[in-house]
Amino acid sequence: MTDVRAWAADGPHEEFKAFGYKLGPLGVDEVDIDVDYCGLCHSDLSMWTNEWGRTQYPFVGGHEVVGRVRATGAQVPNLKPGDKVGLGWFARSDLASRQSMAGDHHLSPGNEGTIMGRHGGFADIVRCQWPWASPLPDDLDVAKAGPLFCGGITVFSPIMSFGVKPTDKVGVVGIGGLGHLATQFLNKWGCEVTAFTSSPDKAEEAKKFGAHKTLNSRDPKSWKEAAGRFDFLLVTVNVTLDWQRLTATLAPKGRLHFVGAVTEPVPVHVPSIMGGQKQVSASPLGAPATIMQMLEFCGRHDIAPLTEHYKMSDINKAIEHLEAGKARYRIILENDF
Amino acid sequence: MTDVRAWAADGPHEEFKAFGYKLGPLGVDEVDIDVDYCGLCHSDLSMWTNEWGRTQYPFVGGHEVVGRVRATGAQVPNLKPGDKVGLGWFARSDLASRQSMAGDHHLSPGNEGTIMGRHGGFADIVRCQWPWASPLPDDLDVAKAGPLFCGGITVFSPIMSFGVKPTDKVGVVGIGGLGHLATQFLNKWGCEVTAFTSSPDKAEEAKKFGAHKTLNSRDPKSWKEAAGRFDFLLVTVNVTLDWQRLTATLAPKGRLHFVGAVTEPVPVHVPSIMGGQKQVSASPLGAPATIMQMLEFCGRHDIAPLTEHYKMSDINKAIEHLEAGKARYRIILENDF
Repeated sequence: MTDVRAWAADGPHEEFKAFGYKLGPLGVDEVDIDVDYCGLCHSDLSMWTNEWGRTQYPFVGGHEVVGRVRATGAQVPNLKPGDKVGLGWFARSDLASRQSMAGDHHLSPGNEGTIMGRHGGFADIVRCQWPWASPLPDDLDVAKAGPLFCGGITVFSPIMSFGVKPTDKVGVVGIGGLGHLATQFLNKWGCEVTAFTSSPDKAEEAKKFGAHKTLNSRDPKSWKEAAGRFDFLLVTVNVTLDWQRLTATLAPKGRLHFVGAVTEPVPVHVPSIMGGQKQVSASPLGAPATIMQMLEFCGRHDIAPLTEHYKMSDINKAIEHLEAGKARYRIILENDF
Repeated sequence: MTDVRAWAADGPHEEFKAFGYKLGPLGVDEVDIDVDYCGLCHSDLSMWTNEWGRTQYPFVGGHEVVGRVRATGAQVPNLKPGDKVGLGWFARSDLASRQSMAGDHHLSPGNEGTIMGRHGGFADIVRCQWPWASPLPDDLDVAKAGPLFCGGITVFSPIMSFGVKPTDKVGVVGIGGLGHLATQFLNKWGCEVTAFTSSPDKAEEAKKFGAHKTLNSRDPKSWKEAAGRFDFLLVTVNVTLDWQRLTATLAPKGRLHFVGAVTEPVPVHVPSIMGGQKQVSASPLGAPATIMQMLEFCGRHDIAPLTEHYKMSDINKAIEHLEAGKARYRIILENDF
């Protein structure tokens, strides 16, 4: 049995408090990680408040972990104690599923989440199945890498999976935790990047992240000029926008892709996507192999989230800051147990 | 000037009558075709009744033409009088557009339709720009080939463009003019084909066209069994279905593709396509190069529409038959001028 010290909330919106729990024997395919840093993601907030109705309390969030391997199960083929690793949203997959066998572990039915039905990385130790503990390249700044394992891979995976090309004109809709990483990725991918935002200060920052152009979503003239322009639009927000207007900015063969879980149905007007052979799609996170490609790409191109750092013991201040919409752009908790 | 004898209607739902008109001098990039056969497509019906509000009268329909080259303009590089050719929905593209230059003439802005703002193939002669007059392979039955140029390419093009694989499990939604061709294509493509239809007699016929399974869309048990099954669903109908239920039959990475111009918006529930990284798309007809690949594929695999034949002078009987929903599955008019 392994004693874990964590920060847990006993109910929606309740304060996080120090909380101890025990992990049972390490499974043969499992890894325990000594947590050094853990990102605080909007999904932690949604889980804390039970927005999705799936939270179990006491709730220990945290699924953007960076740390060092503490112990490995007998059948872990690639890791040893002391290895630097990262862990994101998923903590376990059925490795024999057709999807995992094809390298698409993130699409495997029955995947288990790091903070769904188990305790996450707001702790000194966290456990996962080995494929989801990704080795960190040496050239990556460990203090900032955490958000790559959720926010980062969420936007990197569709760029890979849907064949975005360096010659493409792309738009990033929403410049937040996901959007500011997408902008960096797509800039280094070689694309012409337009940031869609209604906030003038974010438009300025988007340029620093690599946006070549910005589109003020409240300016009708901008929309008009953008008609038929984009090969790939990455929607990182989860609020309802004027989808018809957004779709009209797609070039022939263009794609409107969602990584934000927009809750209201998006009305797709078939005749308006038919003439230009357009597509609408969505994706969740990414596969372990894609995570490794992303980490290598980040190291090679100096891509990192812009982060704000808190001691993990200040988690309540940090989550208040996030909930107030003030995070620029990702929050990282430093383990001070 | 070339005298053309045609069948024209003077208004919506009005009888087609013999109608003569003159074609001006042949453009350097144009071809005149002596019409032998012309399919009667549902779009002819929609244009005749001005369903889309874009019909000019007198209206001469007909955009599934098979015939012989009568005359060629000075800059036509590939055709000579007497060559057997087919002509479909499009009659002219901007050959210098980015889309045409990339081989996607069917997506080129400003494409001109064979029966939009000009007179079509219910006539003894019809004119088009040379890329849209596709040479017919010798092994194709000219009497039945017409519908390939509209209904056929409409379903063949997305199979090509969206990378349907022989290992895929595919569903054809609606077994009509388009669906019965899609079923044949996908069977010869190597796929496992399921025909979605609520009509028991069409289910039986679908098997003859190559469906391995049928799904009775009125049977809840069938839907349940189909959950998560399909890599590619081709929607050939243009009526509103239970899209949420249909989307639930997609496998991870599955695609819901529309070739029927469903008029009511299709509500896409992002969270329900996100987990499985699913896609929704639509496409119009296909490019000249794809038409040539389709014709070669049809010849090699003995694929042909199931047709009912009328003399062109019986066009009014034929369109009545089509309007009554009785066509099984495509109607062909034989030029008897």
